Amino acid sequence: MNIEMIRAAAARLEGHVRRTPLLGAPVLDEIAGRRVLVKAECLQHTGSFKFRGGWSAVTGMKPENGVIAYSSGNHAQGVAMAARAQGLPAVIIMPSNAPGPKIENTRALGAEVVTYDRATEAREEIGERLARDRGLTLIRPYDEPFVIAGQGTTGLEIAAQAKAAGVTDADVLIPCGGGGLTSGIALALEAEATGLRTRPCEPEGFDDVRRSLISGTPEVNAALDGSLCDAILTPTPGDLTFPIIKRLSGPGMAASDADCLRAMALAFEHLRIVIEPGGAVALAAALFQRKEITGDAVIVVASGGNVTRETFTRALAGAKG
Amino acid sequence: MNIEMIRAAAARLEGHVRRTPLLGAPVLDEIAGRRVLVKAECLQHTGSFKFRGGWSAVTGMKPENGVIAYSSGNHAQGVAMAARAQGLPAVIIMPSNAPGPKIENTRALGAEVVTYDRATEAREEIGERLARDRGLTLIRPYDEPFVIAGQGTTGLEIAAQAKAAGVTDADVLIPCGGGGLTSGIALALEAEATGLRTRPCEPEGFDDVRRSLISGTPEVNAALDGSLCDAILTPTPGDLTFPIIKRLSGPGMAASDADCLRAMALAFEHLRIVIEPGGAVALAAALFQRKEITGDAVIVVASGGNVTRETFTRALAGAKG
Repeated sequence: MNIEMIRAAAARLEGHVRRTPLLGAPVLDEIAGRRVLVKAECLQHTGSFKFRGGWSAVTGMKPENGVIAYSSGNHAQGVAMAARAQGLPAVIIMPSNAPGPKIENTRALGAEVVTYDRATEAREEIGERLARDRGLTLIRPYDEPFVIAGQGTTGLEIAAQAKAAGVTDADVLIPCGGGGLTSGIALALEAEATGLRTRPCEPEGFDDVRRSLISGTPEVNAALDGSLCDAILTPTPGDLTFPIIKRLSGPGMAASDADCLRAMALAFEHLRIVIEPGGAVALAAALFQRKEITGDAVIVVASGGNVTRETFTRALAGAKG
Repeated sequence: MNIEMIRAAAARLEGHVRRTPLLGAPVLDEIAGRRVLVKAECLQHTGSFKFRGGWSAVTGMKPENGVIAYSSGNHAQGVAMAARAQGLPAVIIMPSNAPGPKIENTRALGAEVVTYDRATEAREEIGERLARDRGLTLIRPYDEPFVIAGQGTTGLEIAAQAKAAGVTDADVLIPCGGGGLTSGIALALEAEATGLRTRPCEPEGFDDVRRSLISGTPEVNAALDGSLCDAILTPTPGDLTFPIIKRLSGPGMAASDADCLRAMALAFEHLRIVIEPGGAVALAAALFQRKEITGDAVIVVASGGNVTRETFTRALAGAKG
């Protein structure tokens, strides 16, 4: 993995990806005790940054018969939309308990959805078997160079937008599952904005990356269920992503589901964007753990916005502020 | 009013305004029966396009002692934020029944808020009296050339973004209160995108502009209360704005509160943006009145996103689709 692969992905994405805005609001600055800049990837095609990696992989790997992916929902939609645009069939393996809209939207994008039981089945095995049987190209959600390169284009935009906003020295808080987004952004910032430091953010109790950074070796989560942050529940850091994160990132942070819901309500009220729980984990850390962060400004990635009406209503029903 | 005033406003706004994205989603295209492009001005500073007019007026009128404005909430915040950036005091006259967050946010932006009873008092009189007594410069919400020029910068962006998206011939549906946004966009499109036609959109029962376009003379609404679309309830078209709208716009459209709530829920789900009822009236018309529109594409302005948690929850609780 290197910066040239990210720049090549940016060239393939040009004209197809949305350059999402970097938003902010005075009230959020007050709560965080510093300027807060939110990279709104929830406004990306299919509602998350995963469209970048999907498009990068589908256009870079040049699959012949079609593609297959396993995903809790966001990678699914990103790959499905990219495959459809290229006229390729897509098979997506999704947990049976993924949020309804994620499954529906993946089907609406023309993909064949195969469900599995997250507690008892390994999606990697199902994916590899179906890929072999049907001659499909497997697009892994994070341990795939073309995917990391696509996610890294978010970092190229952050570098340019932060500079335009006058911010050259800041922590960059990133929701982190397998680490594709975090490692991609870390590589982009290493090349283009050396004063910006990535910080992986995870749900409390599912903080394998945070613990791995402390121990120096990949740690495993005890469970894969029991958080609202369905988009970023992964068992352990990726083989490709972890060495990059270890080399380039600052310490990890973890936020509770309750703080994610509070952050979602504040983003609703002051940024007018919809963030899903897993996509709000970095904003929650920025707003409610100010002592863990240094500097006059903090950059936050709002990585996705695919949330059910029920969960969003729950966020809005929470205590104010 | 002319295009040069809009171009001058764009120059003053450069580096201060957000160039809001033009969003879309396959599901919305299916519902509308044509491609739908949504200009997300709810992502503008202070959560509505009114920041444009406020900034344009505060920087163009060069007030000496401070500014005063009357507003149901969005113009209030736009003027307050622009005045604060210029180091000027701002007094804002708001209806006592304006949504709580609009009043709170206006105060948080440093403005002095004076409330009045929308049913029994005329905000214009209060505004003119206070302006005279305190030597403040009155910034009218729509019948003010600098304000129309600011709102018109939205049209310059739509012209460029539609062209980049390959759309050169379409109706442009715009939430319309006093007509500042509609007239400003109409002038911008007349100069820069002659295939794009403005269509003012209003709440059912408060469709003074639609009726005025039919009769050719300014009509008056029977009431100023009784719609969720608080942001665009005005008694009659503006003296400056109506002649422009009459000359350049296609027929008006009106949408029910129920359809605005449905449109808000669909924008939540498929665009991941927060729109307030008055800001959703054009999207509602585009989605649910397809026979009233011609062409393969429709452009919609989502003009604001300042909505209470209660009203948004109501939108999310509605029937699906």
